[in-house]
Amino acid sequence: MNIKQNISNISSYNTDLFQKDFLLTWEKNEDDLKAILDIANTLKMMRDQNISPRVFDSGLAVSIFRDNSTRTRFSYASAANLLGVAVQDMDETKSQIAHGETVRETANMISFLSDFIGIRDDMYLGEGNKYMREVGDALDEGYQKKVLPHRPGIINLQCDMDHPTQSMADLLHLKNYFGSLDQLRGKKIVMSWAYSPSYGKPLSVPQGIIALMTRFGMQVELAHPEGYELIPEIVELANKNAFASGGSFHVGNSMEEAVKDADIVYPKSWAPFHIMQQRTELLKNKDAKGLTNLEQSCLANNAKFKNWEYNEAKMKLTKNQNALYMHCLPADISGVSCVNGEVQAKTFEKYRIETYIEAGYKPYIIAAMMLANKFENPGLILDTILQRGKERVMM
Amino acid sequence: MNIKQNISNISSYNTDLFQKDFLLTWEKNEDDLKAILDIANTLKMMRDQNISPRVFDSGLAVSIFRDNSTRTRFSYASAANLLGVAVQDMDETKSQIAHGETVRETANMISFLSDFIGIRDDMYLGEGNKYMREVGDALDEGYQKKVLPHRPGIINLQCDMDHPTQSMADLLHLKNYFGSLDQLRGKKIVMSWAYSPSYGKPLSVPQGIIALMTRFGMQVELAHPEGYELIPEIVELANKNAFASGGSFHVGNSMEEAVKDADIVYPKSWAPFHIMQQRTELLKNKDAKGLTNLEQSCLANNAKFKNWEYNEAKMKLTKNQNALYMHCLPADISGVSCVNGEVQAKTFEKYRIETYIEAGYKPYIIAAMMLANKFENPGLILDTILQRGKERVMM
Amino acid sequence: MNIKQNISNISSYNTDLFQKDFLLTWEKNEDDLKAILDIANTLKMMRDQNISPRVFDSGLAVSIFRDNSTRTRFSYASAANLLGVAVQDMDETKSQIAHGETVRETANMISFLSDFIGIRDDMYLGEGNKYMREVGDALDEGYQKKVLPHRPGIINLQCDMDHPTQSMADLLHLKNYFGSLDQLRGKKIVMSWAYSPSYGKPLSVPQGIIALMTRFGMQVELAHPEGYELIPEIVELANKNAFASGGSFHVGNSMEEAVKDADIVYPKSWAPFHIMQQRTELLKNKDAKGLTNLEQSCLANNAKFKNWEYNEAKMKLTKNQNALYMHCLPADISGVSCVNGEVQAKTFEKYRIETYIEAGYKPYIIAAMMLANKFENPGLILDTILQRGKERVMM
Repeated sequence: MNIKQNISNISSYNTDLFQKDFLLTWEKNEDDLKAILDIANTLKMMRDQNISPRVFDSGLAVSIFRDNSTRTRFSYASAANLLGVAVQDMDETKSQIAHGETVRETANMISFLSDFIGIRDDMYLGEGNKYMREVGDALDEGYQKKVLPHRPGIINLQCDMDHPTQSMADLLHLKNYFGSLDQLRGKKIVMSWAYSPSYGKPLSVPQGIIALMTRFGMQVELAHPEGYELIPEIVELANKNAFASGGSFHVGNSMEEAVKDADIVYPKSWAPFHIMQQRTELLKNKDAKGLTNLEQSCLANNAKFKNWEYNEAKMKLTKNQNALYMHCLPADISGVSCVNGEVQAKTFEKYRIETYIEAGYKPYIIAAMMLANKFENPGLILDTILQRGKERVMM
Repeated sequence: MNIKQNISNISSYNTDLFQKDFLLTWEKNEDDLKAILDIANTLKMMRDQNISPRVFDSGLAVSIFRDNSTRTRFSYASAANLLGVAVQDMDETKSQIAHGETVRETANMISFLSDFIGIRDDMYLGEGNKYMREVGDALDEGYQKKVLPHRPGIINLQCDMDHPTQSMADLLHLKNYFGSLDQLRGKKIVMSWAYSPSYGKPLSVPQGIIALMTRFGMQVELAHPEGYELIPEIVELANKNAFASGGSFHVGNSMEEAVKDADIVYPKSWAPFHIMQQRTELLKNKDAKGLTNLEQSCLANNAKFKNWEYNEAKMKLTKNQNALYMHCLPADISGVSCVNGEVQAKTFEKYRIETYIEAGYKPYIIAAMMLANKFENPGLILDTILQRGKERVMM
Repeated sequence: MNIKQNISNISSYNTDLFQKDFLLTWEKNEDDLKAILDIANTLKMMRDQNISPRVFDSGLAVSIFRDNSTRTRFSYASAANLLGVAVQDMDETKSQIAHGETVRETANMISFLSDFIGIRDDMYLGEGNKYMREVGDALDEGYQKKVLPHRPGIINLQCDMDHPTQSMADLLHLKNYFGSLDQLRGKKIVMSWAYSPSYGKPLSVPQGIIALMTRFGMQVELAHPEGYELIPEIVELANKNAFASGGSFHVGNSMEEAVKDADIVYPKSWAPFHIMQQRTELLKNKDAKGLTNLEQSCLANNAKFKNWEYNEAKMKLTKNQNALYMHCLPADISGVSCVNGEVQAKTFEKYRIETYIEAGYKPYIIAAMMLANKFENPGLILDTILQRGKERVMM
């Protein structure tokens, strides 16, 4: 599809993205999601053709990272820069936020001339998404009471529930890999737990994947050992989505079973839901000893499932023995980054470049979320950019 | 007032801001201060109307924060970005400055392509402002000896003596709240010490307020418990300013007395002058035990004055029982950020949004200081920007 | 020389800089080096005349600093900003790179929308330059496999072998100081070890200087106490360069002997090659006690050579008693930054401003490296910029 066709599609959707935060994919309608995908593809094509989609002459994109990040940090910075806004980190260790400032106040203080706030807050179950909404409420009040000249849009850069910039990048990868969203109907995708010698990995990626991929008529399989459940409400949501979209959703306890005839596999480690809940309580109570004990028992439990590695033997079970392997990266690769991990080195290597391409969509997904938040008619804006034809790099 | 009237005013002032650092409000003449206010208002109106006042195609605004900051850091970043210069943090923990580099050398090394240097250095009495002048002297030499292509302008983002971006934002808030600077004549403003369970808060805000507000014919009251004096020279300066401007200045030792019939109250904690002096000496001597002892005795002394809380009872004493409450934020709010604090929660809440609006002027005050430093005729530049009519966000 | 003459020169060179990393000066041909110098001078003149050489509407310049830096950090930021790309720090303590990510993967993850990657990695002999090449190989693969839309250019901001942005800035200083590269033929430059009460300073500056200055027909003297050798291969390279360029290269063990009749002196401390090798091994083995012992014995050995201070007495031995003094800064100045150091305070002071001017070329050298990497015909681009005549600051 060329740029003009993409832009034409965008204008045809019935979206509700304008001046709305992007916090959970399941709060967005199908046209919203399609629009984000097409805007992202358009921006990518433009940049590849040296057309600058810069729409801001100035403005700030605030970033609040309450957990480490390389990929998402760079993706957010790239997206902001592409559109013309400067990233300003809200570094909580440097600021006075630790000294008792309320979220409500700080949200306004960092927003007087800001257009976007990107937030990663994925450490505590029940906290991250809640925090984003608190920030949003504060911005709503600030805008209504004329403290802020406009309402900055919030982009969820990973919370305890969802990781929408990841899952949408993953979906765009699938769309482009298989040719269209329609081509995904009936395809089998397996979101499987995988062994990792680490502890406390967030649930947001598997939750984001099952909640999003069930909306496009796919056959979604969730597989994990007993005890490694996700948040029940989101599993239930995936079930409903599958029913509504004409797809299917199934949960099982065997990676081998799950990957049979799969078109796509996404093997990734996460912590069990109930462990994350205990951990959140222990962290709140600053119970260091309790945390150490929990970590040890959790790692010991993990160790029972070292056979949950995606490898050549399991790949042979997939459709044509070559299901597309996906990962949000970095993967725990057996013999490379750890002794036993999520994936066999040989298997990972076959799809390594595909995982890079998958990751490469994230900056454009974020830029699309920004554009759709800021402009009522993003198709029209993209058309204007195309006609303007400004070069990104002088030629 | 509309943009054109503001610009017309700016051109009518007899200012001496061009290529001058902004270190202390009391080094500036009245026209200088009025020009900054009008430039700030103009820039704010432009941005609110989607007119981009970007005047730089490239350039750096260096920031040196020797103390934590959220508000001022974001204000500085917003101002720089609005005008088109990129912020570059001089992070002293990351650089070699800790390894014996002289201020003189470093000042030049960070300035080859820099237009502004914003500095916060408020920890030690007798040090912060001195440091800024050392940097300034080094830049003067560098410019004279052709090391630097132009002389970067220094903006005081809070020192031991003054906090001019804060006090000027406060003044702009008062001007816009009451309608004009003339409307401030005869109004009673109370800068009062207030209790806080913390220690070592800088003196720059109360000093900045009494030194600035006495210049516009206001009745300025300074109130604090005995022993919580400010730097004597600045108190004396406030006295002289009041006399010269036709206002008044009075120091007392009772918050109740002070707030009677006040139009404006500014209750805020600070450390006593002589404690800050002792603290500076102890810090220089790296006397950890002495510092701990000083902190304990200071907190114990503070605790005698828990009744210095601004609250509903005190508000009832003010003019029409509704004096405008001001604060540089974050405030220590009783029952919210601490058990006993500077202000009662109910009272703070009534003026919370006003304190946000107050804070919202700071980015524009800083941008105005930058513009006035860089351009001999800022009115002309703003007029050019207005006629250019470049959009901040594409429409 | 004026801008047009410089641009004309640039177009006359036969360069191989386009889409090539700048890792070591000795991988570049003479025309490459001349082009960088002329581009840098052109960019400096443009900026001094308020002509903006901005060629990017968006884009990122990633910086990876594995060692502290003020000068180079600001130079890199200034260069990027001048051309229109935004700096994005890859802060390894903030990212997941410490959690086992491979260099190969990370290099791609930070490069989706990046134009340049500047790397400082000078701590371990045999490691820094190797790391840069690993990053480069990963980018090559990413570009070939269509992960990246273009191949970001890598700029060596100091490694274990060379410090090309420093040595090229030094060369530009010499060219402009003496009038032309031709004027450098036959001039005597002394790269001398000097005493410092510190330990473990990189070898990259002296190595960079002897390898570069021998290429322009200069008489290069390397002087150091016995035991303070540089990497043998680079000393041998200097020897060959001198022979090829019609200059000379000599190694001696006396600062007094070396500085006789010198036109230029560059007295600077460094750690002995074999000590750096041992240190690298100890660091790899995390042998804290071994490192402490090595540091103590090394400092004790250093202390035997306190007379290796450049001072008035030694300056009297130089040509006309006023050889140009150079330093990459910060210098260890006796009685200022330490008791005994590399240079006497009085002597340093005479050339202090010259060292600032020397340092001031670095941002332009880096910008020149960026421009030459990105554009096949930088002369043509500079000519286009000149004709465009866009102001850096609105006038």
